[in-house]
Amino acid sequence: MATAALRTAPAPTIVPVELGDRSYEIMIGPALLASVGRIIADRFPRARASIVTDSNVRAHHMAALVASLDVAGVKHDAIEVTPGEGSKSYGTLQKVVDFILAGRFERGDLVLAFGGGVVGDLAGFAASVARRGMRFIQVPTTLLAQVDSSVGGKTGINSPHGKNLVGAFHQPSLVIADTDLLDTLPRREFLAGYAEVAKYGLINDASFFTWLEKNWPAVMASGEAEREHAIATSCRAKAAIVAADEFETGDRALLNLGHTFGHALEAATGYSDRLIHGEGVSIGMVLAHAFSAREGLCPPTDAARVEAHLAAVGLPTRIDQIPGPRLGVETLLTHIAQDKKVSRGSLTFILTRGIGKAFVARDVSPDAVRTFLTETLGA
Amino acid sequence: MATAALRTAPAPTIVPVELGDRSYEIMIGPALLASVGRIIADRFPRARASIVTDSNVRAHHMAALVASLDVAGVKHDAIEVTPGEGSKSYGTLQKVVDFILAGRFERGDLVLAFGGGVVGDLAGFAASVARRGMRFIQVPTTLLAQVDSSVGGKTGINSPHGKNLVGAFHQPSLVIADTDLLDTLPRREFLAGYAEVAKYGLINDASFFTWLEKNWPAVMASGEAEREHAIATSCRAKAAIVAADEFETGDRALLNLGHTFGHALEAATGYSDRLIHGEGVSIGMVLAHAFSAREGLCPPTDAARVEAHLAAVGLPTRIDQIPGPRLGVETLLTHIAQDKKVSRGSLTFILTRGIGKAFVARDVSPDAVRTFLTETLGA
Repeated sequence: MATAALRTAPAPTIVPVELGDRSYEIMIGPALLASVGRIIADRFPRARASIVTDSNVRAHHMAALVASLDVAGVKHDAIEVTPGEGSKSYGTLQKVVDFILAGRFERGDLVLAFGGGVVGDLAGFAASVARRGMRFIQVPTTLLAQVDSSVGGKTGINSPHGKNLVGAFHQPSLVIADTDLLDTLPRREFLAGYAEVAKYGLINDASFFTWLEKNWPAVMASGEAEREHAIATSCRAKAAIVAADEFETGDRALLNLGHTFGHALEAATGYSDRLIHGEGVSIGMVLAHAFSAREGLCPPTDAARVEAHLAAVGLPTRIDQIPGPRLGVETLLTHIAQDKKVSRGSLTFILTRGIGKAFVARDVSPDAVRTFLTETLGA
Repeated sequence: MATAALRTAPAPTIVPVELGDRSYEIMIGPALLASVGRIIADRFPRARASIVTDSNVRAHHMAALVASLDVAGVKHDAIEVTPGEGSKSYGTLQKVVDFILAGRFERGDLVLAFGGGVVGDLAGFAASVARRGMRFIQVPTTLLAQVDSSVGGKTGINSPHGKNLVGAFHQPSLVIADTDLLDTLPRREFLAGYAEVAKYGLINDASFFTWLEKNWPAVMASGEAEREHAIATSCRAKAAIVAADEFETGDRALLNLGHTFGHALEAATGYSDRLIHGEGVSIGMVLAHAFSAREGLCPPTDAARVEAHLAAVGLPTRIDQIPGPRLGVETLLTHIAQDKKVSRGSLTFILTRGIGKAFVARDVSPDAVRTFLTETLGA
């Protein structure tokens, strides 16, 4: 039950991400955008901000960000990229890096990623390579970015050979997640982010998944405390996994639940508007549970519950819901094999023994996946 | 006094670089190229090698490397780039990264940099960003690369805004420096590397500089033990400085002795054949000592000794020795100001109190540099 008073005097939730000398905080709550300038001036005295954003975010929120920076005396300059996955390219990376260098932003300054996952991945990678590493802060404007991209330091661009195959691990110095910004998010984008929220329940927190089954309408509604709770819970879950395995040599791979199938679907649809990332994850999570059930690992009732919840909130859960030409088994298998989570020929998948019981399976047979996909697609 | 027996049964010098879980070894000695395959097979079982080289190195040494890898059963593929600084570009980086990805080299495989500083910087940066970080090993083929580029993990490319402004800190997993490879190096390239060798004496080891004044002819001669000693001493000196300050927040900047002036000269001559890197460093070190003497910091006799030694070995020591159009003071100052070692407006230079007594000066006045350059250039 949000009130006007609550929203003008927010006490943000703070989620610490513990990574030794790369530790940082995530601030989560309503009405934070107006405080960004003051927070930067307090924590990074005299730093200038090199803002990276896209045209959608600029139209909705740039004036408020600029006002906040100006009031606090934080100098800034901004570069705008085209919205969408296409900006995670070598060409756009070069543009952003050259913008930072041309503006003579120094190592003591900041790159400020102001946008969704694409802007965060791109700006973070640019910050990582400009002058061999500049600090950056994230002001994520989508649910996906608030719960996923802003935690863990994975940055990068896409390659003709696959998504996110070029990049760096580069932790932000601070993340400021204003939950009010989600009010301007198209419903499809919000849902795509919700898939990642649900993922944290499915990985290792069955009670959170149960909570979501009950409270999802409030999470979707503007100004509700449930939204902040869902985001903070997701960030805490991811932070704990990342803290245990920053460079993905082990259990960090759990975060890829639904992503091996999901990335293959995204690749097969050309990273186009036919299927956005969170939708791929939604279908991918359903497939991961169904495949686990088929292998006798996961109770079929759990797999059914996952599909029912994601369908209830309005996410796609089946490959045949993807608009456009039908996708073939061999196409998907080729993309799965090129996924960077392949190790020496056998496939690595995140499988599960039930809701909240995901695990890393490093020896999945391509034949089993082929059979499963063939049955699923009814080919 | 090298003998044939010595050269067929080399016991390489091992220089450890101590960087916690990023520690690695530098192996230095004659006739090591033939052992590269065996060393890789021993230390990185089953890893494939993605070789990055240039056409010069390929012509001289590729057959020997390939034979060594084949005998040891190490699978490999190679990409060749154009020799020279021009390959430290976004375009070539993309080509190398896409080659690695197209070949499906995985995180457990290796990028093998086989060449001089350009190849090492480029291949190391490509390894750092491909799949968000792959292991790489260096087989440096120039003196510069053996004593400088192979130690410390600085990788990167150039930007229109300056040299090495885009890159990453990415440590190699192993460096194998075969001193015999230097026999095919053009004299100009050898001398350019020698400037970096002399630098280690000038930074903090006066006795090494004195040793070089006496022994430089043997260092330049093929097959002499003095060559291995000079390279190992340089690597040890750099390793000690890097171990104390991996990410250049303090004394690592000492390695830039001669480089602020040197980079400005390189930039002003368009990174062209008019002045190669080590030549810029040679002139830059002479200028750093002369400027320090002018500021009353360094005995003029020491500055004179530095110039005399570098001139004796055949290196350029004065700006007016650079062929082509005369360089102007303001042009040089502009390039100095854009150097990434600028911090909040005041210039950071490496100055010295005498041979072996270099220090980081963070508050050098641009006016003092202007006056010095004006006098030096006789404008």
